Amino acid sequence: MWTDGYITADWGTTNRRAWRVEGGRVSAEFADDLGFTSVSPGGFPDEVANIRRRLGDVPLLLAGMVGARGGWVDAPYLPCPLDLDRLVAGLVATPDPRAFIIPGASYQDGSRADVMRGEETQFFGAVAAGLCAPDAIICHPGTHNKWALLEGGRLTRFRTVMTGEMYNLLKNGSLLRAWLETEAAPGEHFAAGVAQGWEGRALTADLFTVRARVLLGTLPEYQVASFVSGLLIGADLRTGLSDLPQGEVVVMGRGALTRLFSAALTQVGRQNREVDGEDAFLAGAQAITERLS
Amino acid sequence: MWTDGYITADWGTTNRRAWRVEGGRVSAEFADDLGFTSVSPGGFPDEVANIRRRLGDVPLLLAGMVGARGGWVDAPYLPCPLDLDRLVAGLVATPDPRAFIIPGASYQDGSRADVMRGEETQFFGAVAAGLCAPDAIICHPGTHNKWALLEGGRLTRFRTVMTGEMYNLLKNGSLLRAWLETEAAPGEHFAAGVAQGWEGRALTADLFTVRARVLLGTLPEYQVASFVSGLLIGADLRTGLSDLPQGEVVVMGRGALTRLFSAALTQVGRQNREVDGEDAFLAGAQAITERLS
Repeated sequence: MWTDGYITADWGTTNRRAWRVEGGRVSAEFADDLGFTSVSPGGFPDEVANIRRRLGDVPLLLAGMVGARGGWVDAPYLPCPLDLDRLVAGLVATPDPRAFIIPGASYQDGSRADVMRGEETQFFGAVAAGLCAPDAIICHPGTHNKWALLEGGRLTRFRTVMTGEMYNLLKNGSLLRAWLETEAAPGEHFAAGVAQGWEGRALTADLFTVRARVLLGTLPEYQVASFVSGLLIGADLRTGLSDLPQGEVVVMGRGALTRLFSAALTQVGRQNREVDGEDAFLAGAQAITERLS
Repeated sequence: MWTDGYITADWGTTNRRAWRVEGGRVSAEFADDLGFTSVSPGGFPDEVANIRRRLGDVPLLLAGMVGARGGWVDAPYLPCPLDLDRLVAGLVATPDPRAFIIPGASYQDGSRADVMRGEETQFFGAVAAGLCAPDAIICHPGTHNKWALLEGGRLTRFRTVMTGEMYNLLKNGSLLRAWLETEAAPGEHFAAGVAQGWEGRALTADLFTVRARVLLGTLPEYQVASFVSGLLIGADLRTGLSDLPQGEVVVMGRGALTRLFSAALTQVGRQNREVDGEDAFLAGAQAITERLS
């Protein structure tokens, strides 16, 4: 059913991207903002039909929040350690006989608990396509940054740090909001933020310091966005790296945020390398469909 | 001018409280939500006239955000170390010859910077009235919790942790918002949060863990508010206490939040004692007017 081409989509919280794949190559694609939170309960069948109208009447392989509670079908989180074979075996059927949802992954250890949806497909895809080694430390920036450990091609544990969401919360509603409309950029002020976040004080203390420094005239307003971005990313790195082994970090993603994480990792002395998250996702979808054929 | 009675007001960001004081005793008072952010630029003279209509045509002593940039008059932040005499000497005149604004306080040391408005009046008032010793460690919960060190009656340093603001941000816009509508309360789940926050990981990691635990069924939804409140307060205590001396902590404030901080301090082994913040404020206003008479 999959060898004559398929559509795969990464259906996230606020956006979705979909690709038509034929013979292992992308022949068409689109992206829009009809993410999980923009689709009404019960609206998924129509949106799936919409994807097919735009990209073709072929089988569908979906990842991400489309499988969350309140999504199209509630797909489980498969516990770590998790490998590609178990992910494929756990594919979830939908009311549409030619559409399947990739399950998410979970990790629990004592009071720690974590979940992901969508990134697992990128991780296994990156390994399958040789974009990263089967033993790898991955940092996947986004609204919810994921730190993951791959061992022998298996996802053995991971931790989420909600750096992107926190930045958005601060930008939308906090006493710093007016100063966060500027775009954060690497450089001196970002680096100063990384250094402070890496020290590991409570963010709730460091963030107020930013406001005080602006009021007292020791931090120019235009530097706030880069500094705060650095502060959150520095704190993220400190926690994320705290229980991961030494070695190169694969920064998986795309765009400005990925570059900021890469710059911060370099600053704290960690070798790192960027891998395109979209390439990894497509490789993951291809690897899954090959096992299904 | 002050001996025949006066009005004093603590004019905060979102609320204001005003008292008529005669012979050192409160004879009338009111509170409303016409805080700093609810008064339009240029609207302060009318609001001051409104206060006088409600409480009497007497001199006015104002503290808090009414003296912030964008308030009635931009009152300075006086640097630490600061004592009551310098605070009185720094009183700021307004366009109204019978209304004065109490300046704020600032602290700077290297990359640290901090500001307060209103709490300084409570601190000096508490000492003047014997509610706390001239050498004291103060925790002042609120939207912006203040940790302060008093030495010989002088405010020598302080640090702000924006625990209350962060809780509100999470409640209004985060992925945890639906579960934060319950009121946080002391008890087992609050204590578990305090213990985790006290460990000092990045809040952005611990907060996502909360979501994951709910999704995976290991944290009941009704426990989230108390747990998250504990988490933020635990992190607050860790940072706030990190550079303060040993000894009893005076928890200055009023209401539920003050009790949560007191419970958390007891949990982490710090002796503490509550002092009513309103009593302290009134004592501060009285001490200032006595020096002016």
